Amino acid sequence: MSVTVVGSIAFDAVQTPHGGRERMLGGAAVHFSLAASFFDDVRVVGPVGDDFGDAEYAVLHGRGVDTDDIEHVAGGKTFFWSGVYHENMNSRDTLETDLNVFETFDPKLSRESLDAEVVFLANILPALQLNVRKQCNRAKFVALDSMDLWINIAREALVAAISAVDCVILNDSEVALLTGEREVVAGARKIMQHGPQAMVVKLGKYGAALVTPEDSFWVPAFPVDFVADPTGAGDSFAGGFVGCVAAHGGEAGIDVLKLAMAYGTAIASYNVEEFGTERVARLTGPEIVERVKELRRITAFDTPDVTLKG
Amino acid sequence: MSVTVVGSIAFDAVQTPHGGRERMLGGAAVHFSLAASFFDDVRVVGPVGDDFGDAEYAVLHGRGVDTDDIEHVAGGKTFFWSGVYHENMNSRDTLETDLNVFETFDPKLSRESLDAEVVFLANILPALQLNVRKQCNRAKFVALDSMDLWINIAREALVAAISAVDCVILNDSEVALLTGEREVVAGARKIMQHGPQAMVVKLGKYGAALVTPEDSFWVPAFPVDFVADPTGAGDSFAGGFVGCVAAHGGEAGIDVLKLAMAYGTAIASYNVEEFGTERVARLTGPEIVERVKELRRITAFDTPDVTLKG
Repeated sequence: MSVTVVGSIAFDAVQTPHGGRERMLGGAAVHFSLAASFFDDVRVVGPVGDDFGDAEYAVLHGRGVDTDDIEHVAGGKTFFWSGVYHENMNSRDTLETDLNVFETFDPKLSRESLDAEVVFLANILPALQLNVRKQCNRAKFVALDSMDLWINIAREALVAAISAVDCVILNDSEVALLTGEREVVAGARKIMQHGPQAMVVKLGKYGAALVTPEDSFWVPAFPVDFVADPTGAGDSFAGGFVGCVAAHGGEAGIDVLKLAMAYGTAIASYNVEEFGTERVARLTGPEIVERVKELRRITAFDTPDVTLKG
Repeated sequence: MSVTVVGSIAFDAVQTPHGGRERMLGGAAVHFSLAASFFDDVRVVGPVGDDFGDAEYAVLHGRGVDTDDIEHVAGGKTFFWSGVYHENMNSRDTLETDLNVFETFDPKLSRESLDAEVVFLANILPALQLNVRKQCNRAKFVALDSMDLWINIAREALVAAISAVDCVILNDSEVALLTGEREVVAGARKIMQHGPQAMVVKLGKYGAALVTPEDSFWVPAFPVDFVADPTGAGDSFAGGFVGCVAAHGGEAGIDVLKLAMAYGTAIASYNVEEFGTERVARLTGPEIVERVKELRRITAFDTPDVTLKG
């Protein structure tokens, strides 16, 4: 099997209460790729400019990610995002967004990327997501992410893209914005009426919920001692989640999806412990498995048969 | 065994996106009592005014709560709180707080209340909490709740009260305010340095965490289709949590505490489905057990032995 991800490749500048970076490798497709690389072969599709060099490619190659479909736009500059996190680390303000080569990005997938059995459409223009989805004829499992911007200005196109995928990954405020529903399960089910058989609702630093037509499943964020930088946590989660499905042949049964939630949670927890891709770039398989098992331990409880009063 | 709770008895007026009530029975001690009544005998200690009548007593008696230590202040009025919930239901603005008889409340506990093996000090002036704690000589398990107000204006007294109890129950923003720690576990451990062997950190609509000196345990909020009114959810949680410990003889081992988290979560989820005490007042034991089992089901996952790449 192989996984193709289409999305942004970026340089980020961030400030958090614990410090900052002036320029670090980022972008949804990068964070996703590194996380998914623990599970399957990964191909990344996205645009970069002249400023994207050997050091950046080395991070992706270090995890075995295939970068042949990274589109180098000569004379262009790589997407740049800069933001500052609030004291509670669960929200942030964008200081600067320079789309640069991302502004005119029109994904061109090689035969190899088009043949992927599992595809992740990271947060890009919904019309492009749908276009890529239609080209990936062999895909058994396609997931997409989006953002408030597209819900506000391209709702119809987003719904069309949602209708064409198997799984939608959004955060809880995006679900509320898209559906008008405050409750996670009700909102997710409303989105799933368009077609997807599963939805992941990210709850920021509180964890995530999986919603299927009949069921729901909940994981807390893995508790870490120290959060340096939440940037990329959602895409690292998606990489672990989608990667796990790929490792199971793209068969997204409920048990696979639950395990996928745990893998996503574990990898995201490593991601936030350092800035940008720094921690995940040197992460190991056993470290991920260790946190998945620990996550199970800190959420499991027994229910003895008791009779209550009344 | 028996449980004594000391705290506010109130009339609440609330508005939520789903409607409101002009005047309903409320107060931390009331919500706690109703929830704890499923596990053990409960005695409630708190002040009321002339406006607190048969209808209000009937709600408590309906769940078998002993109201002999409710102090009727002749000529006084019962504590009144009025608030409006924001669209996301996870935060609220207080419109009016009339302390009334609560302003000069000085808890007077009967012999029976003082002899309780399990005691809950609901959110009142920390000096009063400490005073009650010192009088309850037979208590095996004492828990307290507090609020941002006391952290800001009576920090030393609050720390003194915390030092004298076995378990502290606060929400995550209160933990951050009290300790300066952003992370739940780190903040809880800092508070536990004062003496308590367990801490519950409430995460609002996202669930709750239990922290012990060596471990942590996490439960999501039980997903409900509809939240009518979050008022009293935290105290209902505390009632289920502390009640479960009481049902286990006040022995707060880790397995009992985990189960207690589940009971608290289940009862709180019923609490929010209707206004004030309306739902919990007619709740049944089997309904609670049903949600505890369902909570286990929607959080459990298997961790097969796999080897990841790298």
